Amino acid sequence: MTLTGEMLIGATAVRGTEDTFQAINPATGETLAPTFHGGNAADVDRACQLAEAAFDTYRATTPEQRARFLESIAEGIEALGDELVQRAHAETALPIARLQGERGRTAGQLRLFARVVRDGRWQDATLDSALPERTPPRPDLRMQNIPVGPVAVFGASNFPLAFSVAGGDTASALAAGCPVVVKAHPAHPGTSELVGRVIQKAVADNGLPEGVFSIVMGAGIAIGTALVAHPVIQAVGFTGSRTGGMALVKVANERPQPIPVYAEMSSINPVYLLPEALAARGEAIARDLVESLVMGVGQFCTNPGLLLAIEGPALDAFRAAAVAAVSAKAAGTMLTPGIHQAFERGVAQLSAVEGLTRPGCGLAGTGPNQARPAFFETTAERFIADHRMHAEVFGPSTVLVTCRDVDTLLAVTRILEGQLTATVQADAGDQAVAARLLPALERKVGRVLFNGYPTGVEVSFAMVHGGPFPATSDTRTTSVGASAIDRFLRPVCYQNVPAALLPAAVQDGNPLNLWRLKDGELGRA
Amino acid sequence: MTLTGEMLIGATAVRGTEDTFQAINPATGETLAPTFHGGNAADVDRACQLAEAAFDTYRATTPEQRARFLESIAEGIEALGDELVQRAHAETALPIARLQGERGRTAGQLRLFARVVRDGRWQDATLDSALPERTPPRPDLRMQNIPVGPVAVFGASNFPLAFSVAGGDTASALAAGCPVVVKAHPAHPGTSELVGRVIQKAVADNGLPEGVFSIVMGAGIAIGTALVAHPVIQAVGFTGSRTGGMALVKVANERPQPIPVYAEMSSINPVYLLPEALAARGEAIARDLVESLVMGVGQFCTNPGLLLAIEGPALDAFRAAAVAAVSAKAAGTMLTPGIHQAFERGVAQLSAVEGLTRPGCGLAGTGPNQARPAFFETTAERFIADHRMHAEVFGPSTVLVTCRDVDTLLAVTRILEGQLTATVQADAGDQAVAARLLPALERKVGRVLFNGYPTGVEVSFAMVHGGPFPATSDTRTTSVGASAIDRFLRPVCYQNVPAALLPAAVQDGNPLNLWRLKDGELGRA
Repeated sequence: MTLTGEMLIGATAVRGTEDTFQAINPATGETLAPTFHGGNAADVDRACQLAEAAFDTYRATTPEQRARFLESIAEGIEALGDELVQRAHAETALPIARLQGERGRTAGQLRLFARVVRDGRWQDATLDSALPERTPPRPDLRMQNIPVGPVAVFGASNFPLAFSVAGGDTASALAAGCPVVVKAHPAHPGTSELVGRVIQKAVADNGLPEGVFSIVMGAGIAIGTALVAHPVIQAVGFTGSRTGGMALVKVANERPQPIPVYAEMSSINPVYLLPEALAARGEAIARDLVESLVMGVGQFCTNPGLLLAIEGPALDAFRAAAVAAVSAKAAGTMLTPGIHQAFERGVAQLSAVEGLTRPGCGLAGTGPNQARPAFFETTAERFIADHRMHAEVFGPSTVLVTCRDVDTLLAVTRILEGQLTATVQADAGDQAVAARLLPALERKVGRVLFNGYPTGVEVSFAMVHGGPFPATSDTRTTSVGASAIDRFLRPVCYQNVPAALLPAAVQDGNPLNLWRLKDGELGRA
Repeated sequence: MTLTGEMLIGATAVRGTEDTFQAINPATGETLAPTFHGGNAADVDRACQLAEAAFDTYRATTPEQRARFLESIAEGIEALGDELVQRAHAETALPIARLQGERGRTAGQLRLFARVVRDGRWQDATLDSALPERTPPRPDLRMQNIPVGPVAVFGASNFPLAFSVAGGDTASALAAGCPVVVKAHPAHPGTSELVGRVIQKAVADNGLPEGVFSIVMGAGIAIGTALVAHPVIQAVGFTGSRTGGMALVKVANERPQPIPVYAEMSSINPVYLLPEALAARGEAIARDLVESLVMGVGQFCTNPGLLLAIEGPALDAFRAAAVAAVSAKAAGTMLTPGIHQAFERGVAQLSAVEGLTRPGCGLAGTGPNQARPAFFETTAERFIADHRMHAEVFGPSTVLVTCRDVDTLLAVTRILEGQLTATVQADAGDQAVAARLLPALERKVGRVLFNGYPTGVEVSFAMVHGGPFPATSDTRTTSVGASAIDRFLRPVCYQNVPAALLPAAVQDGNPLNLWRLKDGELGRA
């Protein structure tokens, strides 16, 4: 496919008239053809008006039609073959194997949501029978979820496939029945165009109205702001920085009609190294933890940026092994010059903090945009007192916080901000401590994991990739996994509505064969 | 029970040191003993710290313990007997029979949530089995909902029992496992103290930590603002004006950690009078609609404030009957002098709108705070052009909008703000029009009802008392009915957590006998 540098607005390709930009190969610093042409508020308006025009038709599609649409997007992405992976590699410097895996995850996500749509539990169909003899009589009441309306999705830089144009936000919004307008991430515009054209074709092939999907582009913040502010848009999906996410939340809150923003933003993902685990397998933990730290050059929302342990010989051995492992790690190329500069700035700011040492540092880089892994250490008292250490440094940087005892470990936990994950390394002898820790962690995070590492997020039914602020802007939700569809739904109740007008999900006879709640009892009858 | 005018902070009664205030009998203008003593930020902090201290213990109670607690509050409210109804009557001028009914609804709500807690579907227990042979291996993943933390509830003036101290917000938050700090509505402080003492006693009788419930008081906005701003509070329930709700939303958004506010605010509840229904039974509709309009002196969130119909002889007959019915209606005493003044102001503002006539007006009042029902009329063109007619006038006021044809009816619908309800009066011959109308209404409202009247909200499983902004601040939720519990929950995922540490809801063997989703299949095995 020849890239054109155009936006995709409904069925057409539109050359923007504003700022132009090109992708940069972060490994070489070279710009990549073609030139992309940024759009303006009029382009956003066109995309949004088409989305609005498409909404009622799209939401009236059957679950089967919507599932097939999602599957055809997955097939289209796979059919792009090596071209997609090569382009994403050139634009992001992420390894080929990682991008192949991410492509598989992206297609798998689309197919999971096809299954979710067919299953129909998302409709939450609920029926209360009329009680005409009661005083006062109870009317016939039926409830189902419907899609909220057109959704704006912001592509994330660190998952150019799985959380970008056809990523989790898009898949769950389309599954819910919401048209999607994507703001492409300017760091991988070519990847975005490739995937966008796949969706555009799938819309046409499935006989759907063109406004079901559009993609707008721009290097600055103006076009994204215009998108969130557009009255047609009813919800926003975003993965990125705390600053970026909160800027969108502000725009959304200041609309005449405020809308929800699902922003997955900032997390330092504490890892608890409990004493028995550290004594039994401290060196193995050190090795695996450093692998998790540097994986993808630390550019994961779930990167382990905070380690907590209790002082003692086992911690000393762990520290030595971790420092040795970090020191042997090569620098890695980050996604963009901007992300690399922010990482260097973050590391420099941490280095200037009094009472924070840097016992470990990876090898110096040899090319542009390379980040050296950094391993810092401080005490619990200093960590609690200095909030500069609580902020995420996006990249391969972590801070070991040494605690005098279990109570100190718990005290640090209680002052943490909200997190996506917390990890506990615990052996059988640590169980009493872990039992005290778990309730504290439940209150701080979306996912608690034992004896593993936080990087790697399964796409499944039970996954929660969310958590209290500032991990996300909406702690009640997840952006990964089947429940992500719930973000784009709202309930409607039908009271004494004539049978001929009732939506299929709540009709007598249960024509969609859904699990439904009837008079408080769940069943499929 | 002798009222003391104190706040209830945990297990103690605390005399506030700030502004004092008394309830006013709106029917007579007399102040009612005792004097209530408003609290300050230190009182709020005490209540919130107790709530925080109680949270982990309270959320660890079994569903059965929590259900029993809710039931004992219901029993305690019933045991107050006539004293409660008489006090509420004196403070609100609402009729005795209505308050008896509201007491029944309040106890019924508490018992519904006891059933919801026992049933356990609120936990949304979800399990994905480990797949150790897969590449990469899938970990064991389990998900459940947990309560968000302490919740602030604002008592509503128009439901002194069902949406006040022990109302729907409190019941659903307590059911979820959240401690509650109530800000009592200053219009019915005596009713609030009576019910608050019932809950305080139920907390003690059930062996729960005292911080599970507190009630703070104050005549101004300072104490409510301090409550929403307090870092311990994790969500807010509110029913009241758009101005009041949005002020709390602003406070919540500006916190270092923003929190959700569930504000049920403003709705004019359009009623569609379709041609065949109007021709067949226009006079009966006029009579019943006017009853709905003046019920409770129009002080319902679901009051029919907007009527839409197509010009013609049937509409002329309806108008004549409605005007006659309104003109025969007596003025009614409103809840507070402030609400009465706002109603008079709203009616005066409408009366000044060019092109709006007032063909019907109820009888003049004879006492203080009495509102005369008002029936206005305008054309679709003028209504669309003038947003002053779109705002809620809280009380017995309605605007009939005449439309030339069905397309005009739909055009008016499309420019409406979000609403709690829409009502359609339709006979068999109206079905084609109704079928066009229904999708437009789904996008605007939380509940669509046919051939009834919007006042009267059933407390059941399928009810949605919510809707797009400005009907509520969060369109994904309901404040009435079983689903209201979802507002106070958030999901947590447990990855490879040792069996001994897993919460009961997601343990192997399903000890709580919950409906659970296991590897995508719903079951109870």
